Amino acid sequence: MLFVIINGPNLNLLDERDAGFYGGKSLFYVNEYISDYAESVGIETEFFQSNSEGAIIDKLQDVRLFADGVIINAGAYSHYSLAIRDCIDALPIPCVEVHISNVAARDDFRQRDVIAPVCRGVISGFGKDSYVLAVEALRRICTDLDEE
Amino acid sequence: MLFVIINGPNLNLLDERDAGFYGGKSLFYVNEYISDYAESVGIETEFFQSNSEGAIIDKLQDVRLFADGVIINAGAYSHYSLAIRDCIDALPIPCVEVHISNVAARDDFRQRDVIAPVCRGVISGFGKDSYVLAVEALRRICTDLDEE
Amino acid sequence: MLFVIINGPNLNLLDERDAGFYGGKSLFYVNEYISDYAESVGIETEFFQSNSEGAIIDKLQDVRLFADGVIINAGAYSHYSLAIRDCIDALPIPCVEVHISNVAARDDFRQRDVIAPVCRGVISGFGKDSYVLAVEALRRICTDLDEE
Amino acid sequence: MLFVIINGPNLNLLDERDAGFYGGKSLFYVNEYISDYAESVGIETEFFQSNSEGAIIDKLQDVRLFADGVIINAGAYSHYSLAIRDCIDALPIPCVEVHISNVAARDDFRQRDVIAPVCRGVISGFGKDSYVLAVEALRRICTDLDEE
Amino acid sequence: MLFVIINGPNLNLLDERDAGFYGGKSLFYVNEYISDYAESVGIETEFFQSNSEGAIIDKLQDVRLFADGVIINAGAYSHYSLAIRDCIDALPIPCVEVHISNVAARDDFRQRDVIAPVCRGVISGFGKDSYVLAVEALRRICTDLDEE
Amino acid sequence: MLFVIINGPNLNLLDERDAGFYGGKSLFYVNEYISDYAESVGIETEFFQSNSEGAIIDKLQDVRLFADGVIINAGAYSHYSLAIRDCIDALPIPCVEVHISNVAARDDFRQRDVIAPVCRGVISGFGKDSYVLAVEALRRICTDLDEE
Amino acid sequence: MLFVIINGPNLNLLDERDAGFYGGKSLFYVNEYISDYAESVGIETEFFQSNSEGAIIDKLQDVRLFADGVIINAGAYSHYSLAIRDCIDALPIPCVEVHISNVAARDDFRQRDVIAPVCRGVISGFGKDSYVLAVEALRRICTDLDEE
Amino acid sequence: MLFVIINGPNLNLLDERDAGFYGGKSLFYVNEYISDYAESVGIETEFFQSNSEGAIIDKLQDVRLFADGVIINAGAYSHYSLAIRDCIDALPIPCVEVHISNVAARDDFRQRDVIAPVCRGVISGFGKDSYVLAVEALRRICTDLDEE
Amino acid sequence: MLFVIINGPNLNLLDERDAGFYGGKSLFYVNEYISDYAESVGIETEFFQSNSEGAIIDKLQDVRLFADGVIINAGAYSHYSLAIRDCIDALPIPCVEVHISNVAARDDFRQRDVIAPVCRGVISGFGKDSYVLAVEALRRICTDLDEE
Amino acid sequence: MLFVIINGPNLNLLDERDAGFYGGKSLFYVNEYISDYAESVGIETEFFQSNSEGAIIDKLQDVRLFADGVIINAGAYSHYSLAIRDCIDALPIPCVEVHISNVAARDDFRQRDVIAPVCRGVISGFGKDSYVLAVEALRRICTDLDEE
Amino acid sequence: MLFVIINGPNLNLLDERDAGFYGGKSLFYVNEYISDYAESVGIETEFFQSNSEGAIIDKLQDVRLFADGVIINAGAYSHYSLAIRDCIDALPIPCVEVHISNVAARDDFRQRDVIAPVCRGVISGFGKDSYVLAVEALRRICTDLDEE
Amino acid sequence: MLFVIINGPNLNLLDERDAGFYGGKSLFYVNEYISDYAESVGIETEFFQSNSEGAIIDKLQDVRLFADGVIINAGAYSHYSLAIRDCIDALPIPCVEVHISNVAARDDFRQRDVIAPVCRGVISGFGKDSYVLAVEALRRICTDLDEE
Repeated sequence: MLFVIINGPNLNLLDERDAGFYGGKSLFYVNEYISDYAESVGIETEFFQSNSEGAIIDKLQDVRLFADGVIINAGAYSHYSLAIRDCIDALPIPCVEVHISNVAARDDFRQRDVIAPVCRGVISGFGKDSYVLAVEALRRICTDLDEE
Repeated sequence: MLFVIINGPNLNLLDERDAGFYGGKSLFYVNEYISDYAESVGIETEFFQSNSEGAIIDKLQDVRLFADGVIINAGAYSHYSLAIRDCIDALPIPCVEVHISNVAARDDFRQRDVIAPVCRGVISGFGKDSYVLAVEALRRICTDLDEE
Repeated sequence: MLFVIINGPNLNLLDERDAGFYGGKSLFYVNEYISDYAESVGIETEFFQSNSEGAIIDKLQDVRLFADGVIINAGAYSHYSLAIRDCIDALPIPCVEVHISNVAARDDFRQRDVIAPVCRGVISGFGKDSYVLAVEALRRICTDLDEE
Repeated sequence: MLFVIINGPNLNLLDERDAGFYGGKSLFYVNEYISDYAESVGIETEFFQSNSEGAIIDKLQDVRLFADGVIINAGAYSHYSLAIRDCIDALPIPCVEVHISNVAARDDFRQRDVIAPVCRGVISGFGKDSYVLAVEALRRICTDLDEE
Repeated sequence: MLFVIINGPNLNLLDERDAGFYGGKSLFYVNEYISDYAESVGIETEFFQSNSEGAIIDKLQDVRLFADGVIINAGAYSHYSLAIRDCIDALPIPCVEVHISNVAARDDFRQRDVIAPVCRGVISGFGKDSYVLAVEALRRICTDLDEE
Repeated sequence: MLFVIINGPNLNLLDERDAGFYGGKSLFYVNEYISDYAESVGIETEFFQSNSEGAIIDKLQDVRLFADGVIINAGAYSHYSLAIRDCIDALPIPCVEVHISNVAARDDFRQRDVIAPVCRGVISGFGKDSYVLAVEALRRICTDLDEE
Repeated sequence: MLFVIINGPNLNLLDERDAGFYGGKSLFYVNEYISDYAESVGIETEFFQSNSEGAIIDKLQDVRLFADGVIINAGAYSHYSLAIRDCIDALPIPCVEVHISNVAARDDFRQRDVIAPVCRGVISGFGKDSYVLAVEALRRICTDLDEE
Repeated sequence: MLFVIINGPNLNLLDERDAGFYGGKSLFYVNEYISDYAESVGIETEFFQSNSEGAIIDKLQDVRLFADGVIINAGAYSHYSLAIRDCIDALPIPCVEVHISNVAARDDFRQRDVIAPVCRGVISGFGKDSYVLAVEALRRICTDLDEE
Repeated sequence: MLFVIINGPNLNLLDERDAGFYGGKSLFYVNEYISDYAESVGIETEFFQSNSEGAIIDKLQDVRLFADGVIINAGAYSHYSLAIRDCIDALPIPCVEVHISNVAARDDFRQRDVIAPVCRGVISGFGKDSYVLAVEALRRICTDLDEE
Repeated sequence: MLFVIINGPNLNLLDERDAGFYGGKSLFYVNEYISDYAESVGIETEFFQSNSEGAIIDKLQDVRLFADGVIINAGAYSHYSLAIRDCIDALPIPCVEVHISNVAARDDFRQRDVIAPVCRGVISGFGKDSYVLAVEALRRICTDLDEE
Repeated sequence: MLFVIINGPNLNLLDERDAGFYGGKSLFYVNEYISDYAESVGIETEFFQSNSEGAIIDKLQDVRLFADGVIINAGAYSHYSLAIRDCIDALPIPCVEVHISNVAARDDFRQRDVIAPVCRGVISGFGKDSYVLAVEALRRICTDLDEE
Repeated sequence: MLFVIINGPNLNLLDERDAGFYGGKSLFYVNEYISDYAESVGIETEFFQSNSEGAIIDKLQDVRLFADGVIINAGAYSHYSLAIRDCIDALPIPCVEVHISNVAARDDFRQRDVIAPVCRGVISGFGKDSYVLAVEALRRICTDLDEE
């Protein structure tokens, strides 16, 4: 089973952003942490990061052909990218949205999430564990799908 | 380690509500499913359900004295109970919010969540697994707290 | 055929509230008036009043097991209790909403009715006759259901 | 006692509109159904339908001179015709608003009812029985007026 | 010089509407009052009243061919008839808006006036004198136009 | 194949309205232009114009019995006539909305179009060619319907 | 009979402001024009202009002791000075609001008029004649008051 | 003279909530402080606290029969409990609203106070002294009522 | 200890404004009433009233140099004077806001209070006693400050 | 004459998106269909698709140098890309906006179209024929321009 | 060349306001700093500060007769003084708006700037250098004007 | 000292856009003008322009490693790119926002600036001099930083 983890704008600078929200660890470190967990439950992972809305859409369209599921942290695009929303809406594979910080407790403009309605579910606020929980959530969704 | 799982209004009728959103299983069944997982990772669980806002607050105040964490699915109260919000805000133990369905994809009035900003994080959309993931999330939060 | 008439907060003080809106008669008197009519068309009635949102939900869940229909005047809860709304939405029996006064001609905050969308219909503005008309409406709904 | 029943735009096509909302019966059939009931309780009825806002106002002004009460289903005009509102507001006889479907459960634009505040009361959601209940409601209002 | 005075819906019932707002005089009386003044300053007047939006537009289009100016009290249509607005906007002759009552001190829905922006000016709150002042205002506008 | 072209309020004065928006040609001229095109592709056309909301609804109801499609430019009524909307929604034949000017580039109040959601499609901004394109669009819709 | 005409901020620069809105004449010239008319109908006039909200309130409070009526063009203060509103509301003498330009056809922020609801009426859009019409309106109000 | 002091949700945990807002003292301590002052001016006091909206309404209805006045700090319910509002509105004895913190300087959702309009007055921001000032205010209201 | 009591626009006409809201007593009388109480608890008082926003700011800036506290009833300026707000925000001495009437129960525009967030607390609705309670509140704040 | 047809995000997956809205045909097929029609009326076509906002702007800037007109379906970018709007606004050649589905009948967020005001006109709801009609519309615009 | 620098309410207390926003220096010091720079580039400066809206308007009207440009920091008046806006709009000389702090990063109510649209440009966030940059900006505007 | 000047979408076509807003000069010319000034005060400059949101973020992330400050004119992205906002917020070097035109005097949608709150300051409305003033502003910020 292969999951693709997509990170959006500015998440490549994870360790330079507000540690109170983002934990102070590098994206490289976080990705290792995720793949370690995934491996331990028999999941293969692939990682992608881009600051570009278009590149994220291209990747999402691409992975639909070979991956079993997608985990996306679209960063600030979560709040306005209707183009990414349309793309996820058209995906034949399940997608789970993730946020490192608890966005509900942050700026007003972060309260609108245009991507959540087309994802299977949302996990936010648990730091790097948000991704791990998403791997677990997606694993269970895919297993259920297989069983049906 | 003891976690209290609190369910709000109408969740006692879980198996009679729209199965597309709520999965069609009884609360009893779901609670068993949760405690099985919790036990397997060494967590004790206690379950509470009430249709009354006041009773939920009483319970939250009560558990702060002996539990290590709270998982709450406040049902419709999530969308307007500022009293529950104030209560969680004053809790000395971590609280995680859970929703069975992906509320982001449902009615307009469900888009306002007044409880999320005072929880550690939110997990929604994964059916009964939302609770299991919350147990896991809370376990990691508590372990981190212990380690500090 | 048994109908349960549920009255929400402050309707127990019916005769002490603004007579221009509420008619100046006691709830006891109004209940008699309703049961007299109901009896005359062969309907049994049961009455319940509570100031508590949770107790109203408990009652609604309870009556679903033995009553043929519910008439509810949720008082001020009509304007914000999404928990009562969710409860009515899950009821297997028909529910009719009633208001004594013509709420459309009153305060702004009374213009939002969160319960109406999940009821079969709404009757408001006819004083104690609102309930009588609701009994009649519900009787016709139940008869139609039986005939189908 | 004479009641005039006024139906607004598109209600002449009752049997061609969405049967889920409008019941699939013709206006002719519904009018018969209403006058049967009215007769049975000693009320004379007159029916009027128009697609024109101005013609409805003309009729309302006209009937004030000879009728004892008015039942109006202003159709879509309910949601914006301030001119009909002003007219009803100036009527010396009581007016009851009726809707066939439960408008509270339909489109957003149907949630604003500019006519309700100047009517005695509103009955909505009971199909053709909405009119019958309105006849009954109006009969009781007129009887009360007579008794005073 | 000929001015046409157009009155909209329900103004034919002037003496039956709330005297606190409308003065308690009949439209016939008010029209006499206006034409007396107009005559005294050498203006011919023509009066038109209709409850129908379309008929008012037809009349406005018609008078553009022979009148020197229009005085309009569009009643409730003032607050939403974009069709009358478009019509006035296309008139080659000046139009003055009039209200009998001081609409600024009345209902919320009367605070939106869609016709005012395409009229030369607005006079409201002076009872039947609102029309007389409008005749005078229009007389001065037309005289200025002639002088240019 | 017969298409009815319905024009709403003030469109009879097409050549007297702002030429920058409306092109400066008379409605008669435009109608000729349309019927010429329609004839060239084998479509019969019938034209109707009214300033009255009610008359437009009457016409729409009427044409459903013999026409194959409707093209409507409801003028200002497009922005608020929920009665026309309800009427089109109930039509058994396809309807296409047309605007001469590009309404998106005009007044704020013209940005709300209540009729568009119940039409098959919308064409706006191409002057008299908007109608011609609508004839072509409708012809293709009807042909597709026939082919199915 | 004495009327006080109060002009608010920037009206002292009348001849330097946009002539399309303000007519290009000096305030001195306009005042002469007004007093000429007033004299001709037997009214004494007093003129006051200030750029200061507080000074306008002081003046309004002062004139209540000796004047028969007030005409106010509060300029931009019309749109937000609740303090002037409260002052006019407490005046024992009638007050008429005047605007030189047709404010309904100007900026959005000019559409809110907080003073109008506490004045007897409003006259706007007739240039310097707005004041003359206000003198006439006020004269009729005062005469009516005297006659009662 | 007897005053009942009602405290709403989470005020039983006064000493565990944010001391910057709530002062860090227990409710027991604050109640002592209030009753000491009340006694010193000859007022008897009774205290009630509940986390339940329904229980607060029950209490308010109850005390109307024997108390001379009510002081209420409805906590978070102040911001949405229309049921408590309706209840206070129907009380035959005066009610004063109190807040410990200056709610005007806190969260957005605390800016809406649905209870204030039906109380005699509001005192907020003075810590435990808010209650003492309310006792004093209520004492003066009751004395005035007695004197009348 | 010296407190300065500042009254804003139109409060100098206290006895001429609506007695239902303002009590019908003159400002002179109310000031005497306040200073009597203040003296009785050993507080010196100074009174200032102005209709001018600027003069109120000048005074506030001035008193910061010699007074121990400020009590302000900014009248209508409470609802929009961000300049007074900025001034109070910069004061080194405590400020308490006062309203004679219960503003929460009055006009919509009075529901926005821009000054409250920068005051220590607010007291409204107790007539002339609002000031007395404010003196008492401020006395306690200053005593606490001294004690620290 | 050369027209460039630009398709925005996710339109490359046309045949994988909801067939009810998008018709189920591939973009390749649709492009063929368009170029066939264009050729038949003597127009050369060039096609461009990108998921990237920046790439669409680059293309628009590029084609201004050699094309005679642009047809754009900006997909989800239509609803928020002010950058594309600014670009089209600066184009020296005419641009027509196209939508495959009738966006007026879809999600709320699709009701805001920021690009339409700077295009010549809009065609939406006719499936692949929307493009063909746009070719025809643009052909007529360009011919008119040439004729002038 | 002479520039007048106008400072609005509370800027005379610059060194007593929040140093994080205002820098902690006195207005006298800042004025010296500005005039030093101005002198170095050959500009004469005049300084004016007032807490009064009316006085600021008087000054603006006054300087138009002899100054070459105006720099204004209207303080809190920037957010609501439409009277100052109207005044600047009528000035024959250029005006530049200045803010010491970066208002975009502060309170919600500071996000509305009613003066900016009638100024040439805005400079905010650079502390005392905001004024120096404004002198430079204005110098370049005036030089360009001279050159034309 | 090195400053990077970043220009967003459509600014590469500076000389083809509305000269009233953008001055009619090419970006090349403006860049020369800026670097001339920068050089004269000892600042090195680097220029970057892109129509792509992602490319602008990439550049901003890149320059943080070697530049002393950033000047950004994000064009239309200023109004909605929360991704660019997040990026600037994480930059360790100061950023100044610039607009060529006075955006406050333009379209409604340009009134929301999501980038300003995370910049040091904003300069808008001075044409190409906006950049020069920004260089000067940034030079002073950097010098202050160095001095600390």
